[in-house]
Amino acid sequence: MIGDPAGIGPEVAVKALASGSVHEVSIPVLLGSTAAVERAIDMIGANVRVRPMRRFEKPSDDPGVIDVVDTGALPPGVLPLREDTEIAGHATAQWLDELDALARDGSFAATIMGPISTGSLKMAGKLHKVISPTPGESYLVLLTGPLRVAHLTDHMPLRQVIDVITTDLVEGAIGQVNDAMRSWGIACPRIAVAGLNPHAMGDEERLEIAPGVERARAKGIAVEGPIAPDSVFRQCIEGRYDMVLAMCHDQGHIAVKTWGFSGNCVIMMGPPYLHMSVAHGTAYDIVGTGKADAAMMLSAMLTCGRLAAGRGFTGGTE
Amino acid sequence: MIGDPAGIGPEVAVKALASGSVHEVSIPVLLGSTAAVERAIDMIGANVRVRPMRRFEKPSDDPGVIDVVDTGALPPGVLPLREDTEIAGHATAQWLDELDALARDGSFAATIMGPISTGSLKMAGKLHKVISPTPGESYLVLLTGPLRVAHLTDHMPLRQVIDVITTDLVEGAIGQVNDAMRSWGIACPRIAVAGLNPHAMGDEERLEIAPGVERARAKGIAVEGPIAPDSVFRQCIEGRYDMVLAMCHDQGHIAVKTWGFSGNCVIMMGPPYLHMSVAHGTAYDIVGTGKADAAMMLSAMLTCGRLAAGRGFTGGTE
Repeated sequence: MIGDPAGIGPEVAVKALASGSVHEVSIPVLLGSTAAVERAIDMIGANVRVRPMRRFEKPSDDPGVIDVVDTGALPPGVLPLREDTEIAGHATAQWLDELDALARDGSFAATIMGPISTGSLKMAGKLHKVISPTPGESYLVLLTGPLRVAHLTDHMPLRQVIDVITTDLVEGAIGQVNDAMRSWGIACPRIAVAGLNPHAMGDEERLEIAPGVERARAKGIAVEGPIAPDSVFRQCIEGRYDMVLAMCHDQGHIAVKTWGFSGNCVIMMGPPYLHMSVAHGTAYDIVGTGKADAAMMLSAMLTCGRLAAGRGFTGGTE
Repeated sequence: MIGDPAGIGPEVAVKALASGSVHEVSIPVLLGSTAAVERAIDMIGANVRVRPMRRFEKPSDDPGVIDVVDTGALPPGVLPLREDTEIAGHATAQWLDELDALARDGSFAATIMGPISTGSLKMAGKLHKVISPTPGESYLVLLTGPLRVAHLTDHMPLRQVIDVITTDLVEGAIGQVNDAMRSWGIACPRIAVAGLNPHAMGDEERLEIAPGVERARAKGIAVEGPIAPDSVFRQCIEGRYDMVLAMCHDQGHIAVKTWGFSGNCVIMMGPPYLHMSVAHGTAYDIVGTGKADAAMMLSAMLTCGRLAAGRGFTGGTE
């Protein structure tokens, strides 16, 4: 899904696809506005052409052709640029619904959400269309090379995080992370669970986190923890674990964003298919200037192709 | 202070001093056991000799000579190796007292604590001798190249951290960080204050942190915040700030330890003189094997010399 048509989403998608490497691991299809994709091709001077589809059909599998599913959510002649609009918000919301439906009916093996604008969605009254991770149901996963972090909680006040952490929640999240990684082709995922308090020594570790880890271990999952939050991410980088389960948003986000931005991508674990997105926004100020970096989108597309095919993280993620 | 005599403290101190570069920024003196320093010289085959002093005298300033103040805290003929002992705990505690007294009377411009053993101190009933940071009085500062972090709270359960953060505490810590950096030679320190909650959007930011920052700004301090915890450390690395004030242990420790270990050193802000330490432990398993890396001790010594002389962070810290 190209993201907000007024942002850099279309051009980073086109740049990533024009590299040709995405076709080596997948059969990519864009969903969104044909006109926005064509404008992006013009902006960056890419040597590809668009094949528009009103509804999903068999994709071309030709790296010189960009298949675009465009159901007409954006009215003809309307093509917002570098600003939030209600009309783009409505289109974005409709594209998210179409994306989900096509993944659920098996047309898409996996999906990537381009950079959307919460501003546009708000103007359209459709902000609720953006999947927000709910503990126990869905988890945000950040991938940046060997550092991979699933978050038990997301945009939640820290005071509430402390009360929300239970043995059941920890056990359930470990199970979901383990199942997801196995489906992506990691035969025996090594999972590290971060503690909550300094050196992982506190009531929450003793009463909730450790028992949750123990229960998951008893089911045969290769999980360790609770591990000191300030050590566990470096250990993951060094290859000791395949993924860290962080207790809160900033444990994982501080680690990922401080270690390095290059090649970050995002998985929203929860939908019954692999659903990814990119870690950057619409960047209105640089749309069409040639400055938009397609590295994150390319990383997302390559990772998405490999994981959906059960081929694991490695071989280009790093 | 050489740290626990049974650990790698003496050998990393000797290695760092034998490099000769410490003498370019300071007149270094060791405090501890002459015998431990001599054994370390033998272990690593350093081309330096010890000049023992029973009490502090004018140091030699010769890079080939290591001055050691040794008041006899470790009894003659006793020299523990690679293990915790009560006797080393007693000696360590006495050395810490002597170090503090010599800094307070002006003999030392600044001090560095080598890697001590809490095990030895516990056996001697002297664990309280290790300065533990107390919010409002003392703050742990981690330095690793351009990433510098002062911690408002240290080994405190997260639940308690949330309640401890007040406008007064934040304002006071900013003032202390600012004063310290000015004394180290940073004319107008740029300080960033991290928020507590995701994206720095929560009650604690609104009610306590932001007002504390505002008060400090009103006094002319170049401070910004609260800033999203997951962005502020990367901004510091990129040179936007001279130091980050983190709200809790793991915000800063995750950032520092995930970004990289090389050259870390530690300042304990609170004593009326510059007091530093190293971020590693006694590493009993590698004592005398030649594997002990003196990089952190050397970084601490060089940083200590520069900061105590008011010459700022740069010129070798990175």
